[in-house]
Amino acid sequence: MERAFFNGIYLPKDEIKISPDDRGFLFAEGIYEVVRWYGGFFYDMTSHLTRLKRSLKEIDITWQGVESFPEIARELIRINSLDDSQALVYLQVTRGEAKRSHAYPDPPVKPNVYASARDFIPENEGKEGGVGIMLKDDIRWSRCDIKSVALLPNTLCYQEALEKGFFECAFIRDGKITECSHSNIFFVIHGVLYTHPESGYVLSGVTRKNVLRIANQAGMAIRMEPVTEEMIMNVQEIFITNTSGEITPVTALNDQIIGNGKPGPVTRILRERFNEEICVLRHS
Amino acid sequence: MERAFFNGIYLPKDEIKISPDDRGFLFAEGIYEVVRWYGGFFYDMTSHLTRLKRSLKEIDITWQGVESFPEIARELIRINSLDDSQALVYLQVTRGEAKRSHAYPDPPVKPNVYASARDFIPENEGKEGGVGIMLKDDIRWSRCDIKSVALLPNTLCYQEALEKGFFECAFIRDGKITECSHSNIFFVIHGVLYTHPESGYVLSGVTRKNVLRIANQAGMAIRMEPVTEEMIMNVQEIFITNTSGEITPVTALNDQIIGNGKPGPVTRILRERFNEEICVLRHS
Repeated sequence: MERAFFNGIYLPKDEIKISPDDRGFLFAEGIYEVVRWYGGFFYDMTSHLTRLKRSLKEIDITWQGVESFPEIARELIRINSLDDSQALVYLQVTRGEAKRSHAYPDPPVKPNVYASARDFIPENEGKEGGVGIMLKDDIRWSRCDIKSVALLPNTLCYQEALEKGFFECAFIRDGKITECSHSNIFFVIHGVLYTHPESGYVLSGVTRKNVLRIANQAGMAIRMEPVTEEMIMNVQEIFITNTSGEITPVTALNDQIIGNGKPGPVTRILRERFNEEICVLRHS
Repeated sequence: MERAFFNGIYLPKDEIKISPDDRGFLFAEGIYEVVRWYGGFFYDMTSHLTRLKRSLKEIDITWQGVESFPEIARELIRINSLDDSQALVYLQVTRGEAKRSHAYPDPPVKPNVYASARDFIPENEGKEGGVGIMLKDDIRWSRCDIKSVALLPNTLCYQEALEKGFFECAFIRDGKITECSHSNIFFVIHGVLYTHPESGYVLSGVTRKNVLRIANQAGMAIRMEPVTEEMIMNVQEIFITNTSGEITPVTALNDQIIGNGKPGPVTRILRERFNEEICVLRHS
């Protein structure tokens, strides 16, 4: 029986019920994090915790217990017997419950804090040979840097991509590629690694950040600049990153084959270095 | 004790609990409607029902019982003893519950349908003399025509306006005023009534639609065009519209007094005609 966390208590997930007055339910006034457990450790919990605090601050939610998130995550792994598994811990914090009004509750109410854990198979498993993604107009808001649960545009666009046979969709705003529905995106052009700089148009992904660090350590040339529509024809490699999928090679963009249709050397090197780090963490 | 509706059943509101797997809670994958009860009738239920069906269709939710919404709303009024009151009925439909994934549940699950009723005092009560609103960059997505619960940008901006002493905030996108955080906006310039045309940047408000009808019947000149930043200095009147507040005169925009600081003649005429229609409906 799956056990989850709700406002300080661990209990059977079925027994956790959210009030219809919850402002996450009514207004998408909430933020979330997903951390990956590698059968022994969480990957870069520090960065997840830092981002969690920032998200809460940006939407004016005070969760006094925020520093306990790593412990909650670890406890969820333990009580669900996931210690030796690949698992994801999901955390969501909403503003709490109040009579419906666009205004914040006054006086403030306590946030609702929900977290759960589950084992998982990465959605890109078996996709080392590369996936195809499609381009979509970026219909999202301009504060995508906040990891909020206002994800309706993301799921609408992702579902369309799936139904058209693609693995993900990459958003394009004002002619520039920003990121994907639930991953960041990188390009290699003439040996230089490109990704959109931090801004309101992209989420600062934890895997993105670590890939940039690894690329830097490997001496790769990096430009924190968006790739434009006009540049796409010059792209040799593309890959996407997120917590659950790590680094996924992209070998087709719409109907355009990227490079020779196989993962390129930069993508391969970054995947190797990333996996080496995981291996070292596992055995340290 | 307040009674509400959940998936076909009327029960004490406290007993309604949403699963943390609800995709409204996790992804803001849901839509809503608010209808106003005038102590005897709902105002333009037909338009609300039409919009509800459109919203559901736009985000691919099938609620077989959608045609029963007027009956559900009426029953909520009755069982909460609101027949002779000013009341609002709130309806929210989400995609339903499934293990968290950006992809739609496959096979599809039943939507969660929640509705509640409460008596209310219009937030603009006593504001016939006019209110002040502020301008804010429109940070929202580009499908504001869908009445979705992905309202985080709306509440963030509305709260900022409230804290700065304003009644509402009006959004400006690419130099054009679109609408407010939870109301549509109208302008009078040299005797012509302006409002943003239907598009992905505005919600097609039921009160907006009826105000346009009334203005047309009154022989007013109407332009379905956005007002730009440059045009603001020429504005004689502003008012905002929504279901709960009907028509609210705006007499200040940021620090600019509009007209002579009092509601203008076009706003007054439209309010009178609107109130006349309500009176006729009440006694018919």
